[in-house]
Amino acid sequence: MTKNRQFRIAARPVGMVKESDLSYTEEPVPNIGANQALVRTLYLSLDPSMRGQMENRADYVAPLAIGDVMRAGGVGIVETSNNSKFPVGALVSGTLGMQTHCVSDGVNPPLRVFDGDVDPVAALGVLGGTGMTAYFGMLDIGQPKVGDMVVVSGAAGATGSIAGQIAKIKGCKVVGIAGGPEKCAWLTDELGFDAAIDYKAEDVGARLSAACPNGIDIYFDNVGGEILDLCLARIATGARVVLCGGISRYNANGPIPGPKNYFNLVFRRARMEGFIVLDYAPRFAAAAKDIQAWMASGRLKHRATIVEGFENLPRALIDLFEGKNTGKMMVKV
Amino acid sequence: MTKNRQFRIAARPVGMVKESDLSYTEEPVPNIGANQALVRTLYLSLDPSMRGQMENRADYVAPLAIGDVMRAGGVGIVETSNNSKFPVGALVSGTLGMQTHCVSDGVNPPLRVFDGDVDPVAALGVLGGTGMTAYFGMLDIGQPKVGDMVVVSGAAGATGSIAGQIAKIKGCKVVGIAGGPEKCAWLTDELGFDAAIDYKAEDVGARLSAACPNGIDIYFDNVGGEILDLCLARIATGARVVLCGGISRYNANGPIPGPKNYFNLVFRRARMEGFIVLDYAPRFAAAAKDIQAWMASGRLKHRATIVEGFENLPRALIDLFEGKNTGKMMVKV
Repeated sequence: MTKNRQFRIAARPVGMVKESDLSYTEEPVPNIGANQALVRTLYLSLDPSMRGQMENRADYVAPLAIGDVMRAGGVGIVETSNNSKFPVGALVSGTLGMQTHCVSDGVNPPLRVFDGDVDPVAALGVLGGTGMTAYFGMLDIGQPKVGDMVVVSGAAGATGSIAGQIAKIKGCKVVGIAGGPEKCAWLTDELGFDAAIDYKAEDVGARLSAACPNGIDIYFDNVGGEILDLCLARIATGARVVLCGGISRYNANGPIPGPKNYFNLVFRRARMEGFIVLDYAPRFAAAAKDIQAWMASGRLKHRATIVEGFENLPRALIDLFEGKNTGKMMVKV
Repeated sequence: MTKNRQFRIAARPVGMVKESDLSYTEEPVPNIGANQALVRTLYLSLDPSMRGQMENRADYVAPLAIGDVMRAGGVGIVETSNNSKFPVGALVSGTLGMQTHCVSDGVNPPLRVFDGDVDPVAALGVLGGTGMTAYFGMLDIGQPKVGDMVVVSGAAGATGSIAGQIAKIKGCKVVGIAGGPEKCAWLTDELGFDAAIDYKAEDVGARLSAACPNGIDIYFDNVGGEILDLCLARIATGARVVLCGGISRYNANGPIPGPKNYFNLVFRRARMEGFIVLDYAPRFAAAAKDIQAWMASGRLKHRATIVEGFENLPRALIDLFEGKNTGKMMVKV
């Protein structure tokens, strides 16, 4: 008999998340009721924002208790259904949770249905949460104009790699900041970034100054910390600092300093703005159409780092925070 | 024979500005050339932004060298004139500098001409740089809506007191943060603020939480530092943090921490934005009309702390940083 395999929150993480912060459980695959569908998970997404949710610091979503199935985005196939919107065999995505099976009525959790020809890896990544985050963060918050100088940190990650390419499509010059020569080569050689800075090996400030002689018009921040400060020191007049994430902060022990160069926002008449992608859900379908068109014309590429095996979810989450992924980090169930 | 009395930059300040950072000089009152007017200074303005200019840290204006006449806003009377736009006897304001006489062609430095019935104290304050800063900072950057919860720091200062009243005129609830019971009483009893917090005597965080149970929609920041962090921790969804000044930073020795709670901008989908009032010069006349109408109807009040005697300019600047002023700090020449 098939079991619903799950990972639940075992402990609030302190410092770097540990495998023991999640516990493996099994329970019977649930039966569906009226209007419900049973989704069999194909891939589950690992995202930096999971860290704050495990610690219950992310108050923009419902809190998770110890013992709850860990929240996670996923893509799957409808196995049984009492809901005509989600027919058997349909490819769907949503917050399926860290489990092999999920029951939904389409509202709880909300499900998106994809055309049959969509690659599940794309549905979870470039057309999923991280792709949407890149799209709305860059376009709505960043508001790129032709010729803008754009810097993206975490640039080889799922969100950063798409955000940078969208800026290129909008006619900007784009510099990516990533960890290691392979990631940097991917950004410039395959994705068309104008430059890439290896923060592990290079002087980020000096390279930024050289690459952005007239300052930074848009800084798309996925990391926070020192790199945010280095960019704030180099913003151009009227700059937009898009606060997307702060991965350097998430696993820190103790208090984390703020950006000491924030006051340059005054001298440069600039703004720093945060957003939560969930707010844009009504526009996801339209954004996905744009992204699919860019992919079809070869202007937007995506990559995933796929870890095989449901049991490796905790390890894959740690790998994400250690920067072992290029593009979207996911587990194949 | 009348002299042009001046204060010049004698040294770059380190830590709190000292009287010896400015040096007194005299020179002959200059003759005017074609198209020029000679302005005799009536009042000179003391502003927190002077500190950064003395240290040459404020790169949004031309740098000042050691030995230069210190930059200062002022209001005066045209004494002699070869320019029909500035007739003898006209009341004018502009960056006259710390001197008793200033020559201008109307462009260098730019001069504004006021109607004869305008009080020079109002021309320099509520209709001058600080009034314009309050107007554009609150309205253009803060974008107040009826019912918004607004917090203003440095609320008894020249800019804060006007910014808070403009928010009240726009239908907001307004809490001011100021130093000392007299200033706080002025805010609530005379200016109509809904509440005032004495940061020298009260628990600012607890008072903010009580006064803003649904969070802060607009925080108009004149001070930076710990108060900025306390407000960032309490912003509402969609909040605007108007970065106007950071007086707590200006005289600091050594590195100053950034706002450690900046990441709440993400959770609250909020923005933090700086501005420089000089950018709004083309709209000053229209703003002054609004402000004069509000004053005429009794909805906007202003106050000045006037130090008598040109020779007291350095001491008045220190008094400003020590918070000895209520409303606009100026010297009567």
